[in-house]
Amino acid sequence: MTTPPIGIIMGSQSDWPTMRNAADVLDDLGIAYESRIVSAHRTPDRLWDYGQSAEERGLKAIIAGAGGAAHLPGMMASKTIVPVIGVPVQSKALNGVDSLYSIVQLPPGYPVATMAIGAPGARNAGLMAAQMLAMSDGDLAKRLHDWRAALSASIPVEPSDD
Amino acid sequence: MTTPPIGIIMGSQSDWPTMRNAADVLDDLGIAYESRIVSAHRTPDRLWDYGQSAEERGLKAIIAGAGGAAHLPGMMASKTIVPVIGVPVQSKALNGVDSLYSIVQLPPGYPVATMAIGAPGARNAGLMAAQMLAMSDGDLAKRLHDWRAALSASIPVEPSDD
Amino acid sequence: MTTPPIGIIMGSQSDWPTMRNAADVLDDLGIAYESRIVSAHRTPDRLWDYGQSAEERGLKAIIAGAGGAAHLPGMMASKTIVPVIGVPVQSKALNGVDSLYSIVQLPPGYPVATMAIGAPGARNAGLMAAQMLAMSDGDLAKRLHDWRAALSASIPVEPSDD
Amino acid sequence: MTTPPIGIIMGSQSDWPTMRNAADVLDDLGIAYESRIVSAHRTPDRLWDYGQSAEERGLKAIIAGAGGAAHLPGMMASKTIVPVIGVPVQSKALNGVDSLYSIVQLPPGYPVATMAIGAPGARNAGLMAAQMLAMSDGDLAKRLHDWRAALSASIPVEPSDD
Amino acid sequence: MTTPPIGIIMGSQSDWPTMRNAADVLDDLGIAYESRIVSAHRTPDRLWDYGQSAEERGLKAIIAGAGGAAHLPGMMASKTIVPVIGVPVQSKALNGVDSLYSIVQLPPGYPVATMAIGAPGARNAGLMAAQMLAMSDGDLAKRLHDWRAALSASIPVEPSDD
Amino acid sequence: MTTPPIGIIMGSQSDWPTMRNAADVLDDLGIAYESRIVSAHRTPDRLWDYGQSAEERGLKAIIAGAGGAAHLPGMMASKTIVPVIGVPVQSKALNGVDSLYSIVQLPPGYPVATMAIGAPGARNAGLMAAQMLAMSDGDLAKRLHDWRAALSASIPVEPSDD
Amino acid sequence: MTTPPIGIIMGSQSDWPTMRNAADVLDDLGIAYESRIVSAHRTPDRLWDYGQSAEERGLKAIIAGAGGAAHLPGMMASKTIVPVIGVPVQSKALNGVDSLYSIVQLPPGYPVATMAIGAPGARNAGLMAAQMLAMSDGDLAKRLHDWRAALSASIPVEPSDD
Amino acid sequence: MTTPPIGIIMGSQSDWPTMRNAADVLDDLGIAYESRIVSAHRTPDRLWDYGQSAEERGLKAIIAGAGGAAHLPGMMASKTIVPVIGVPVQSKALNGVDSLYSIVQLPPGYPVATMAIGAPGARNAGLMAAQMLAMSDGDLAKRLHDWRAALSASIPVEPSDD
Repeated sequence: MTTPPIGIIMGSQSDWPTMRNAADVLDDLGIAYESRIVSAHRTPDRLWDYGQSAEERGLKAIIAGAGGAAHLPGMMASKTIVPVIGVPVQSKALNGVDSLYSIVQLPPGYPVATMAIGAPGARNAGLMAAQMLAMSDGDLAKRLHDWRAALSASIPVEPSDD
Repeated sequence: MTTPPIGIIMGSQSDWPTMRNAADVLDDLGIAYESRIVSAHRTPDRLWDYGQSAEERGLKAIIAGAGGAAHLPGMMASKTIVPVIGVPVQSKALNGVDSLYSIVQLPPGYPVATMAIGAPGARNAGLMAAQMLAMSDGDLAKRLHDWRAALSASIPVEPSDD
Repeated sequence: MTTPPIGIIMGSQSDWPTMRNAADVLDDLGIAYESRIVSAHRTPDRLWDYGQSAEERGLKAIIAGAGGAAHLPGMMASKTIVPVIGVPVQSKALNGVDSLYSIVQLPPGYPVATMAIGAPGARNAGLMAAQMLAMSDGDLAKRLHDWRAALSASIPVEPSDD
Repeated sequence: MTTPPIGIIMGSQSDWPTMRNAADVLDDLGIAYESRIVSAHRTPDRLWDYGQSAEERGLKAIIAGAGGAAHLPGMMASKTIVPVIGVPVQSKALNGVDSLYSIVQLPPGYPVATMAIGAPGARNAGLMAAQMLAMSDGDLAKRLHDWRAALSASIPVEPSDD
Repeated sequence: MTTPPIGIIMGSQSDWPTMRNAADVLDDLGIAYESRIVSAHRTPDRLWDYGQSAEERGLKAIIAGAGGAAHLPGMMASKTIVPVIGVPVQSKALNGVDSLYSIVQLPPGYPVATMAIGAPGARNAGLMAAQMLAMSDGDLAKRLHDWRAALSASIPVEPSDD
Repeated sequence: MTTPPIGIIMGSQSDWPTMRNAADVLDDLGIAYESRIVSAHRTPDRLWDYGQSAEERGLKAIIAGAGGAAHLPGMMASKTIVPVIGVPVQSKALNGVDSLYSIVQLPPGYPVATMAIGAPGARNAGLMAAQMLAMSDGDLAKRLHDWRAALSASIPVEPSDD
Repeated sequence: MTTPPIGIIMGSQSDWPTMRNAADVLDDLGIAYESRIVSAHRTPDRLWDYGQSAEERGLKAIIAGAGGAAHLPGMMASKTIVPVIGVPVQSKALNGVDSLYSIVQLPPGYPVATMAIGAPGARNAGLMAAQMLAMSDGDLAKRLHDWRAALSASIPVEPSDD
Repeated sequence: MTTPPIGIIMGSQSDWPTMRNAADVLDDLGIAYESRIVSAHRTPDRLWDYGQSAEERGLKAIIAGAGGAAHLPGMMASKTIVPVIGVPVQSKALNGVDSLYSIVQLPPGYPVATMAIGAPGARNAGLMAAQMLAMSDGDLAKRLHDWRAALSASIPVEPSDD
């Protein structure tokens, strides 16, 4: 069984309604992925193993979603040179500002490609992963251009009251 | 004259002291790049042309830094499927929170891989670009591993008073 | 078919419930307008064309609403000297603070006349457009004075429990 | 002695280093203006008189700068239908976030065209006033196009280390 | 008909559900008050007259509630030396942070005694007005002590699950 | 030795450069005061005693300044019905936002009349204390009117470049 | 009747739905506790007595929850050297940012071990209390290891759509 | 060589000027400690080992300081049941708000006892560690009471102008 190019990981089952948006985009673009729950705090060894083996397993990008202190994307980034795309999941009290700061404010050496808070960010995480793959996959690049063209074409010229 | 794989663009000359950190990392890793001033507001046509031609010119990733309303990374992302890495330059009144929100809170369809505010973010933008390239360049991957190993090895065990 | 003096543009159909408030005020004051969906990211060419032709088509002011990274008002302002009035649409995670900062924190050269977040701001955008037109239209100035007088007269002296 | 088209008002002498940037732009574009200190709290009667007489004196736009609670722009907007352009002056403890919120978050009926915090916002206030006047002054419109063209032409292609 | 010692004013009918809490406390303590809608923007002349006449009419304190740009308390404070107690009404997009900053960040010379955001603040505004009056009214002081004693006595020792 | 009508208290010696501004205003208006360091955390018994005895000692208002967690004003308010005026001292990391929230967001029952952050707030605290006293002291009321008139008269009509 | 090692205190009955989460964790781990309502403002004497007697009564840690100005944890910390664990209860207007700042930003001398805002923080407060006790209770340490192992084991490998 | 009861760890040498304040307090109270640089991102294995061995090595509490994304305290807390006390080091762009949120907003299961931002927080971290140890060390408890008594006694009664 071969490793898909993209791994979608998240800190808890409760992040899935957000992160599913990344999976949907990858489905639309015909890109294979695996989805895993990897909690930085509750399953640190799982995080260690996932990060340690990511490159040799053949993962090309990792999409990591987490909320609150949101250590998952940054810790994953410290364990592998496979690009990590971070999605700040909207938190309860602080609306995801905590998630955003924890993911984006990393020290030099270990970047996480941070997306918008919540579902729009997860959707864009899927697209960013696709764009990374497309740089060496002309066929996927074409599908991305088509996807964008369809999105543009779907925008009506005037707003409607209904 | 061939196009380098990485373009570093910024909204103004005053962003260069920040963005130079991205260039430094690329220099360290032996990755070629071009650096350009492309202002979303003052030179919108330059932005249009740069984005329009990026893919066919052969750019593999674009690092875009901007401060305040910081429209450059997001607008560049709407003009090309080449991955855009955004660096929020620290602004005066709002310390870069405005830059960060403007770059990271993009709508679905047009992701920007957002980094930390200021120089640490620029440094990480260079590394993220390198990690993207390394996925299809085993030699660069090795250099990245070495770079990280050297960084880890440089950390002393105990803090020093001097 | 003549161009109306005011253009109301917005980044997406979902902004219309907010932006409709601008249209309502213009209707009240008997000012003609057109309303268009112009997405900075999804339809950048539409944005380019709209901005490029605004002045010669005879638009006197453009009301632009957007949420999140909210690049539409600022990008429109860079494409035309027709005054742009910006409305920060309330966003989900950040409640429109992101929209506000992205619209108001523009660099010198390209102002956007920024209004309050959400529906009150859209309503005021219609009034600001009217006030701009009224400076060279004494009849409209009179209608604005009447509108204000009616608003003042509608305020009861004491609060009511019902 | 005739009234100039633009009035620049501010809450205190200490706002002048910021607001002077509006005056500079108007000077560059050859637009006459008057500058006055009008404190909403310390000279409320001056505010009343200025607002009451603005329209009949022939003012076409009022640029109002203030910091902190920053009531001047909004109160001026309630006294006249002449468009008010607000500049949030950077405050000490809150960096101008207080000034920005106080100016931009006005209730429906009394818009203030809010600019960026501090000197860049003052500069843009001058330009917004010019753009308003240019809508019925073809000569000024031409000067604005030239001003923008010069600004664009001044942007170098590459950043410089010096 | 005599003037009561306390005036409760608010920017709009929609502030009454919040401000009613101030009235309730005054009712509890047997202190007379009047309640008025005075909009800083929509009825500036009403504001002028209320402030101008407050002292000679015999008002001893004014409770002023407003939301958003919330200019009412500060403008009232500039028109009278009768102490003004400000209540930041919770706003929609910014949750009352805008109201709070606009009311509390006044320049030297014109203080507003600012209370907490929303209903708790309105309740405390009533109590602060009572405490001001109690300084020269021993009977009221006694009622305040009793009120506090009753409040303290009402607090159970252990939390209850029901 | 008689108790002055106003007590100025602060959490630490380092608050004095801010709180001195309250003392200066009281000096200007000829109002007697005492100034004390009362730390809510380091000298809780001093706080208890000061609050317990304030009313019978004859204090008419207490000005309390504190920074950071800033518990002093609120705890003092729970110990006495003498009106407490709170001054949020500007803190280092959070610029006084922490001080402001801790002082203003009190629960119903124990109001603190909160002023602006830092020196302007301390100055206004002195004025608010004076306004409270003036309600039953016609002579002081007259001095306050004069003080305000002098302040208004000192505002120049035009800003000056020097 | 012996004193349990842990005291759970809170500012009001309305904090119990949050603080109950601390009690639940202690129940799970077989640690005895008492729960009390102790309002810093409404029952200052109760606070004094609780703090004064905590150490000699044999309490080993105090979990204190409060919202808004949230003075309870910090004031308790000033009255006893028994470690205080603070839980910022989510407030209405400011979502608990006020509670968090008031609890965490204490001056040197009187630490409060601050937890996350709301129910997750209360749950962690129970665990932190347990970890403190476990340092001199090998049996409890074992139960904590088991508790964590069970938590880790409960995390599924893949997210589920149901 | 025996393990001291307290470990002070920090993400980088640049955190030492802050964290030294924790060491100073421990020195004052005669408590032994070790200080180590442990970077969550740059030396993840060091973090793993430190956390894994902490309990059996005999550490009783770990003080962990970090800035920005600040993953160190939370990751350490996931690797050991020894209580972790977190110090948010003041960061450049966001003043330590990012550090604070990343440290305090942990998910249920893995508490970090969070202190104030910067040096005051580090000082309190040392005291919190001492308070934890004092619960089973009567001699240290006495030293803590003396330390507090000396601090209280050092507070002057009146502020001084020099």
